[in-house]
Amino acid sequence: MENENALEVHRNLKGKITVREKRKISTMKDLAVLYTPGVAEPCKAIAKDKSLAYEYTMKGNTVAIVTDGTRVLGLGDIGPEAALPVMEGKALIMQQFGNIDAFPICLDTKDPEQIIMITKAIAPVFGAINLEDIETPKVFYIEKRLTDELDIPVFHDDQHGTAMVVLAGLYNALKVVGKSNDCKIGIVGAGSAGYAIAKLLNAAGFRDIVVFDSQGAIYMERPELEEYKEILASFNSSGFKGKIGEFKGADVIISAASPKALPIETIKMMSKPNVVFALSNPIPEVSLDQAKELQIDVFGTGRSDYPNQINNAVCFPGFLRALLDLRVKKITNEMKIAAAKGIAETVQNPSKEKIIPDAFDKNVKDNIVRRVKEVV
Amino acid sequence: MENENALEVHRNLKGKITVREKRKISTMKDLAVLYTPGVAEPCKAIAKDKSLAYEYTMKGNTVAIVTDGTRVLGLGDIGPEAALPVMEGKALIMQQFGNIDAFPICLDTKDPEQIIMITKAIAPVFGAINLEDIETPKVFYIEKRLTDELDIPVFHDDQHGTAMVVLAGLYNALKVVGKSNDCKIGIVGAGSAGYAIAKLLNAAGFRDIVVFDSQGAIYMERPELEEYKEILASFNSSGFKGKIGEFKGADVIISAASPKALPIETIKMMSKPNVVFALSNPIPEVSLDQAKELQIDVFGTGRSDYPNQINNAVCFPGFLRALLDLRVKKITNEMKIAAAKGIAETVQNPSKEKIIPDAFDKNVKDNIVRRVKEVV
Repeated sequence: MENENALEVHRNLKGKITVREKRKISTMKDLAVLYTPGVAEPCKAIAKDKSLAYEYTMKGNTVAIVTDGTRVLGLGDIGPEAALPVMEGKALIMQQFGNIDAFPICLDTKDPEQIIMITKAIAPVFGAINLEDIETPKVFYIEKRLTDELDIPVFHDDQHGTAMVVLAGLYNALKVVGKSNDCKIGIVGAGSAGYAIAKLLNAAGFRDIVVFDSQGAIYMERPELEEYKEILASFNSSGFKGKIGEFKGADVIISAASPKALPIETIKMMSKPNVVFALSNPIPEVSLDQAKELQIDVFGTGRSDYPNQINNAVCFPGFLRALLDLRVKKITNEMKIAAAKGIAETVQNPSKEKIIPDAFDKNVKDNIVRRVKEVV
Repeated sequence: MENENALEVHRNLKGKITVREKRKISTMKDLAVLYTPGVAEPCKAIAKDKSLAYEYTMKGNTVAIVTDGTRVLGLGDIGPEAALPVMEGKALIMQQFGNIDAFPICLDTKDPEQIIMITKAIAPVFGAINLEDIETPKVFYIEKRLTDELDIPVFHDDQHGTAMVVLAGLYNALKVVGKSNDCKIGIVGAGSAGYAIAKLLNAAGFRDIVVFDSQGAIYMERPELEEYKEILASFNSSGFKGKIGEFKGADVIISAASPKALPIETIKMMSKPNVVFALSNPIPEVSLDQAKELQIDVFGTGRSDYPNQINNAVCFPGFLRALLDLRVKKITNEMKIAAAKGIAETVQNPSKEKIIPDAFDKNVKDNIVRRVKEVV
């Protein structure tokens, strides 16, 4: 029923975003100022000094949402056309919650070198790049190359957006349960989200983090570790080598994998009070009923109909707003941690049922921008 | 003063276009329909059948304005950032006069193979491609390759937009002077505009066309003719081999070159009554005072402060509207000729001072769409 409705809504809209004029052309004079011959003036000015594109054009407020459609929602590799409704939705949210002009670039190529070349080539129009729904580990390589080679910030929401919202939620959750940085954390899943969450938590001072992939805990001596998993192994300070079902005494479990990746036994073996974020969407690894039965103290999911929705939409519009306003060239961990603090402090009195503001909270964006500004 | 004004207007606007939401997200329910989880439904439908992108996304109304900034206005190779104000202006006009969502793609590469590869890769989001301000003859190759290899129409306004408006103006001008298809035509300039004008006039049944480049008339036996100029040579049915200053008895002269490319002597040697389009912009090859002195019967230029403005803005919004509405895959000469007829007939009673409608005439778009529909 709701699905039918979503199809109908999309059919009626035929595009959730539209490119509008900021000023109408009403007279020949308008045409002469906004188009030829007047337009030659800003062109000549920018030809002399490229940075003036920020003064005279849309560049400074415009974000490219770049995807190859290889890892869209939970649907996998559905291609660039089928990815477009998601990218339009992303642009819609960026506009509504961040006043950002965002445009979908859905690429009919999966080749990382081509994706890098194309993104660099289209960059003149944009003030920031948002990589979206590109498969791992390819996207890590693309993000690194683009960050090194472009002079505008490159943001990968599946990684960093998720990580910032998780860290924000964790700050408030730990307040609620009265625990601190020295807590024991298990992260289930080593895809974009798990990878980025682990790295950001480490950067934010959490030192006991075990990340699990389908083979079990990631640890230093594990054979045939991919390069990016070596980084995750370095966070495993306890040297745990077992499966997730054998992981005991965790204060915090964050699952960003598939619905079945997190066994109930692991939650039963956690220390108390505890925090569980079950981020698989739309079906979380743990249902609300189960969470109550298991007496999880602070429980968060990706669902809007459960309390504590860990939702990127709380973060990316404000974070991109900050990147554009502050003309950031490279994103740092300090900026991400600052943004997480900005999100967390938007909740005045964190409680079991309220550790994260919702996307409609008008203070989130301003808090993120203010906090990021402090560290730029 | 007006230039200063144009700079100020651009600085205040910081972008002449903006990406807006078609529907606000007001509630969590909206978010669930327009974004996750609802958005998965159109994604899945399009993954099964790519053509449904026209039903559920922005594709069917969206145009990419692709440039490499190598031939912008009369400014030459000023680069992709400096080209952006022009592309924004183009998008603004497409929206206002054609209800089209257009977006600038300003490429930081001049390599034709890369431009082709990139344009093909970004095509999933777009219903049509508008090539703009790319240097000749490179752009002819790019246009041909993309037309062959893409399943959406590829429009090069500098060529075909100009050619259609010129043909429209010529239809009405010939009515005014009482001449027909068998008139003698000289075209000055063999760049994008001259090349396309000559080809379209030939396709529309004009048989006596001499095109002049900086070396003089283009004719079959001329040594070292570039491939695209061989086509132009084939229109030179009289076999004229001289310079433009030696060209006698023309009924129509169309100059799309530089201000000094058209000698007054040539106009003095024309037959009477005659038609002169002096399209160099902003300084036409012949001034209005000169035109009066020379007693040109029908005189057109690119200027908005002269009568008979031969302005692409009259054509491209309506023509692109037609391409999108009719889901055209390849543009044909028949469509271009039909569009020219649609533009021409918008002027009810053509006169010496009024052979072309202005861009603000609300009937132009509908007349173009109706005429093109007849030949699709």
